[in-house]
Amino acid sequence: MSKFWSKAVEHAKPYVPGEQLNDPGIIKLNTNENPYPPSPKVREAINLEIERLHLYPDPKADALNNTVAAYYGVAKEQVFVGNGSDEVLAFSFMAFFDQGKKIRYPAITYSFYPVYANLFHIPVEEVPLNRNFSLPVEAFFQSEGGVIFPNPNAPTSRYLNLDAIKEIAENNPDNVVIIDEAYVDFAKESAVELTIQCENLLVIQTLSKSRSLAGLRVGFAIGHPNLIEGLNRIKDSFNSYTIDRLAMAGARASILDKEYFKETTAKIIYTREWVKEEMKKRGFHVLPSQTNFLFACHYQKSASQLYEDLKEDGVLIRHFNKPKIDNYIRITIGTDEQMKTFIKKLDKLI
Amino acid sequence: MSKFWSKAVEHAKPYVPGEQLNDPGIIKLNTNENPYPPSPKVREAINLEIERLHLYPDPKADALNNTVAAYYGVAKEQVFVGNGSDEVLAFSFMAFFDQGKKIRYPAITYSFYPVYANLFHIPVEEVPLNRNFSLPVEAFFQSEGGVIFPNPNAPTSRYLNLDAIKEIAENNPDNVVIIDEAYVDFAKESAVELTIQCENLLVIQTLSKSRSLAGLRVGFAIGHPNLIEGLNRIKDSFNSYTIDRLAMAGARASILDKEYFKETTAKIIYTREWVKEEMKKRGFHVLPSQTNFLFACHYQKSASQLYEDLKEDGVLIRHFNKPKIDNYIRITIGTDEQMKTFIKKLDKLI
Repeated sequence: MSKFWSKAVEHAKPYVPGEQLNDPGIIKLNTNENPYPPSPKVREAINLEIERLHLYPDPKADALNNTVAAYYGVAKEQVFVGNGSDEVLAFSFMAFFDQGKKIRYPAITYSFYPVYANLFHIPVEEVPLNRNFSLPVEAFFQSEGGVIFPNPNAPTSRYLNLDAIKEIAENNPDNVVIIDEAYVDFAKESAVELTIQCENLLVIQTLSKSRSLAGLRVGFAIGHPNLIEGLNRIKDSFNSYTIDRLAMAGARASILDKEYFKETTAKIIYTREWVKEEMKKRGFHVLPSQTNFLFACHYQKSASQLYEDLKEDGVLIRHFNKPKIDNYIRITIGTDEQMKTFIKKLDKLI
Repeated sequence: MSKFWSKAVEHAKPYVPGEQLNDPGIIKLNTNENPYPPSPKVREAINLEIERLHLYPDPKADALNNTVAAYYGVAKEQVFVGNGSDEVLAFSFMAFFDQGKKIRYPAITYSFYPVYANLFHIPVEEVPLNRNFSLPVEAFFQSEGGVIFPNPNAPTSRYLNLDAIKEIAENNPDNVVIIDEAYVDFAKESAVELTIQCENLLVIQTLSKSRSLAGLRVGFAIGHPNLIEGLNRIKDSFNSYTIDRLAMAGARASILDKEYFKETTAKIIYTREWVKEEMKKRGFHVLPSQTNFLFACHYQKSASQLYEDLKEDGVLIRHFNKPKIDNYIRITIGTDEQMKTFIKKLDKLI
């Protein structure tokens, strides 16, 4: 505490990201990073841009907006880009949720949502998940102030079909429904197409996972131009230039290289499926994943013990010490080689 | 207007940055960019980092904090880095100013301050400048909720001595005094050294001007560890990873290359001084500048006309259509060659 702090600081409950160990000897399966480097085109694009670093970037990020728009077949006015999807999420909380009205999100979900809600004084109703960790669709109907959830959900890895998302949007006609699609490229399909019909639906994505660009910090939102204008008004009241020149150039090159993206994403999905089967053989209950990670518990060995033992043995996974999921571990899908080592180390433990 | 907007969007009054024309034929003297490219070390550092882009950056930005701390001879715990100094300013408004208490800034100053104050519902007392555009020091004593101003001030280019800053800090014992030193590397000296004695003083700087890195978006704050902790709590409630890997690497390399920095800064100061003399010879009143720009008015020709005529002739400068300064133009200092062309074009006009 300091007498110089605002009330916002006093009441802040900051987010705690996963451990970022820089030990190259460790197998890092704890923050859902992509094990493959970004497309080689990213390096070329960044190198061309370095010579312009003394000049401000385009505050409207038109080139990147256009690239995202073309990729998804929407208009440029339906796209907003930000400094990682976390920034897009923060701006969205400011732009669409109000202090007087309760928003809904799942009781088990991305742990940054309560942090934003607390920071911006937005009241919350946490919706319990079904026993199998699926989303209770109707419980999100007729919210007072809006809805937000990831699809696939994190850390559960479960995916919700588009019909259900459409129903949730239609049953919140006066509020914004935000679908946080950080992992959607490892899943069946994106809800972007629904944003044409549902003017209250905002879809948020990131280049951190499927694009191998966690280190570059780029995310985006797609929605009705009215929603995008709301985000731009907040952004331009907060920071004019959120995306630097290198991030803009690298993100564009990545999105344009569709072949590389398809190849690396397919590899991760393939690896995910065999790792899942191997874990099942070893007594794990593994949720059906449409992400680049698995969420699993063991019939005998506790999650916290697994986390500790694996860490001791040079493999970092994630364990959330929270009600209802404290006996689960979350394992990011790495390369085939990394995952073979992971399975071998599991065999030593169980 | 949209029924989906929050009250924050409805009431937002976004900042409008200077025009960013991408016409390479134009001489761009309107957004205080550095005419020289960044240190060659920046390119090397960025290239080394590209291969790690699939991994998240360090959310604490320790390496960059350490570099800034070493440069200024302060502790790492006294440094906070952000995605451009605008983001550091936005976080500072959230961390140190409260809704119930009026803050003070100069009536003529960086036009983002009123935007932040409006966004975060912070009431404001705008302090009129003296007739010669210098800061009335005592008018900033005993503020209700805090003080913020740039030193040198923008767009006036005038510098305030450290004694006066110390007095302002000492006469606001219960509030934070923020000195926005975006241009200080072109001035006499920084107030960083005062942060050791004055625990309520926060100094903010940017790499956009003197470091030729406007396109990379890096700024920082230096102050008492309590103030820095306040900023970290806000940041970690908003966006864990605000600085991407390339920005972190490039910023470090730039700060470590002291020779290049000294050389380019000295060149700009040298150019500034001769341009000032040439403008005076042509009937301009030019304020004493300790920045990389000049603020001037002509005894005969209106500022808006000068702005228009120069734009027509391929030179972009800045004109603020605001009370008391609407007859002034702001000219960024470019290379000697650019400024010779500027003076020649002036000769055609007046």
